[in-house]
Amino acid sequence: MHDIYAARREKLRSLLCSRNLDALLVSQAANRYYLSGFELHDPQSNESAGRLIISADGRDWLATDARYRDAALRLWENDRVFIYGADAPTQLHGLLRQCGSRIGMEAQGVSLAFARQLAGTGIWLEAADGLVEQLRCIKEPMEIAALKKSFALNDDLLRWIEGELRPGRSEAELSWAIERYFREHGATELAFSSIVAVGPNAALPHAVPGADRVTENCPVLVDVGCRRDAYCSDQTRTFWVGTTPTDVFQRSLDLVRQAQKTAIDGMRPGLPLAEAYGLAHKVFENAGVADAFTHGLGHGLGLETHEAPTLSARAQGVLLPGMVITVEPGLYYPQWGGVRWEHAVLVEEDGVCVL
Amino acid sequence: MHDIYAARREKLRSLLCSRNLDALLVSQAANRYYLSGFELHDPQSNESAGRLIISADGRDWLATDARYRDAALRLWENDRVFIYGADAPTQLHGLLRQCGSRIGMEAQGVSLAFARQLAGTGIWLEAADGLVEQLRCIKEPMEIAALKKSFALNDDLLRWIEGELRPGRSEAELSWAIERYFREHGATELAFSSIVAVGPNAALPHAVPGADRVTENCPVLVDVGCRRDAYCSDQTRTFWVGTTPTDVFQRSLDLVRQAQKTAIDGMRPGLPLAEAYGLAHKVFENAGVADAFTHGLGHGLGLETHEAPTLSARAQGVLLPGMVITVEPGLYYPQWGGVRWEHAVLVEEDGVCVL
Repeated sequence: MHDIYAARREKLRSLLCSRNLDALLVSQAANRYYLSGFELHDPQSNESAGRLIISADGRDWLATDARYRDAALRLWENDRVFIYGADAPTQLHGLLRQCGSRIGMEAQGVSLAFARQLAGTGIWLEAADGLVEQLRCIKEPMEIAALKKSFALNDDLLRWIEGELRPGRSEAELSWAIERYFREHGATELAFSSIVAVGPNAALPHAVPGADRVTENCPVLVDVGCRRDAYCSDQTRTFWVGTTPTDVFQRSLDLVRQAQKTAIDGMRPGLPLAEAYGLAHKVFENAGVADAFTHGLGHGLGLETHEAPTLSARAQGVLLPGMVITVEPGLYYPQWGGVRWEHAVLVEEDGVCVL
Repeated sequence: MHDIYAARREKLRSLLCSRNLDALLVSQAANRYYLSGFELHDPQSNESAGRLIISADGRDWLATDARYRDAALRLWENDRVFIYGADAPTQLHGLLRQCGSRIGMEAQGVSLAFARQLAGTGIWLEAADGLVEQLRCIKEPMEIAALKKSFALNDDLLRWIEGELRPGRSEAELSWAIERYFREHGATELAFSSIVAVGPNAALPHAVPGADRVTENCPVLVDVGCRRDAYCSDQTRTFWVGTTPTDVFQRSLDLVRQAQKTAIDGMRPGLPLAEAYGLAHKVFENAGVADAFTHGLGHGLGLETHEAPTLSARAQGVLLPGMVITVEPGLYYPQWGGVRWEHAVLVEEDGVCVL
């Protein structure tokens, strides 16, 4: 594993050189983990578990506070672990000075307060977002293996949950059952808060599982993901509980699955991201229901549930081999609910394969 | 509940006036929730669930993206819900303009990238951190009630877990058992990642439960908390599994509990925070073990596990009625482990009471 992280840092170094940067201060948790294996999560939203300084000359630092000293020493060259106190920015300044005069930092990954304190020390900092994300976008074989493990468990869960959707069970109850299943079958945590949405709740993009219960004949949308070996899965199915799905449900389900199949069949390296979205959208347009498709077609996933790239009408860029992206068309009707169906695909040399 | 949030916004308005601000852009998740009841968590570390604009003239806004439209409309005056698209800063600019010319924002709660985009629109922004935190520091009766519920469940868990600490069980197994207990007895989630640390692992401030197993005679440190009605609990106990604790364990345990009791007995409104720390430190100093007490004495807690104030040697300020603070002295020895014992106290008019 150490070699994998070191190889990623070497790739990042090439990007630094091409940007004429002496070093990059890495603060985003997933980027930090990607380059070091150190702490995938920050302890809470306004506390950092540590930062990396990746230097063009190869002398990198892992900087953290005393809580993480032992964890840092276990996986990083010990004389390049830096322990800071309460005033981290000022103390980091000395390290950054050693690295050179042009230091990049993730403007989306540091707070304004942190950046101001650091700038106050007189160092020249420039925004250099997206460099690590650019690497993360193309998955390596070990990442694909981890994603496959995560999706395999997700598949098991979705097969199992169908039998659990019995009238009388509440969304919240089912949501906890899902979390238990994931955790007791090898997941370290959920990838995101599960959605279990009964009836009209299925129309809400941010449905929070509550007291509503499965009834004799109703749609239930299940959008769930787990984390396994650090990598996230994310899948959605929409079930009809009972034997008599309404016509509009059945028709929506057929259209959603057709839109998904059309997109997956058409996705291949070089296809503009916006055109992938367009493939699904066109199916809905032809059926006269495009207004009910209210979100993008998908998003990259890996160490985070939402990462680059995005499949939407305005997305820039093209599909590249090694990208892992969800394909999740949906149709939503506040009156009765909605349907979403989600797989993730790996872009390969000659098309995509479903994870 | 709506009245409670409105009353908090009124208190914040007084602080805005005293700082001569026309409005505050609230971005920190816990602050946002405290003032509105809207979304306690952001969906992932680099995505916001929404922001509040609290205006000195009383015309407040809840700004979010389309995913949260329904949730926003359920709890906020509908014509003051603002839905932004991909370019949130530029779109927020128009709203902020309406509020006046001096806009405060939480420099610790916005990214440098967000602040730059907003500043690029020509609006005058100034750092105004800590205003909401200043209110949150003094707990209201409903907050104290929620904290008591959360701590009551934590007490139950700690009574129950003692019987579960049997030789052969791994830290990871016990950690999952703890999470299940919390969730199946009314907690919505963990307050933080549980620590279950066997033997020498108990000396690590950031012990991650792993494959190490409880043995016939060993110390086990359990530091756990749950969230109930949005409020966090946090307690630590150190158990000796088996009947023959070592002398050094027993002596450390006695000293830690004595240091805790001394601090709790001495804490009262008006006492400088640093002196509260000093009360515990003095006990260790007198016993010649102060070097083994490697962290602060405690931290505030509420909507977040770590919030103001902090009890440390360099802390500024004094204890005030309504503060809720952990008191958690510890002694650590890498050779065999360590002992920490943690309660939380509520500062009252004439002393403190243990939650």
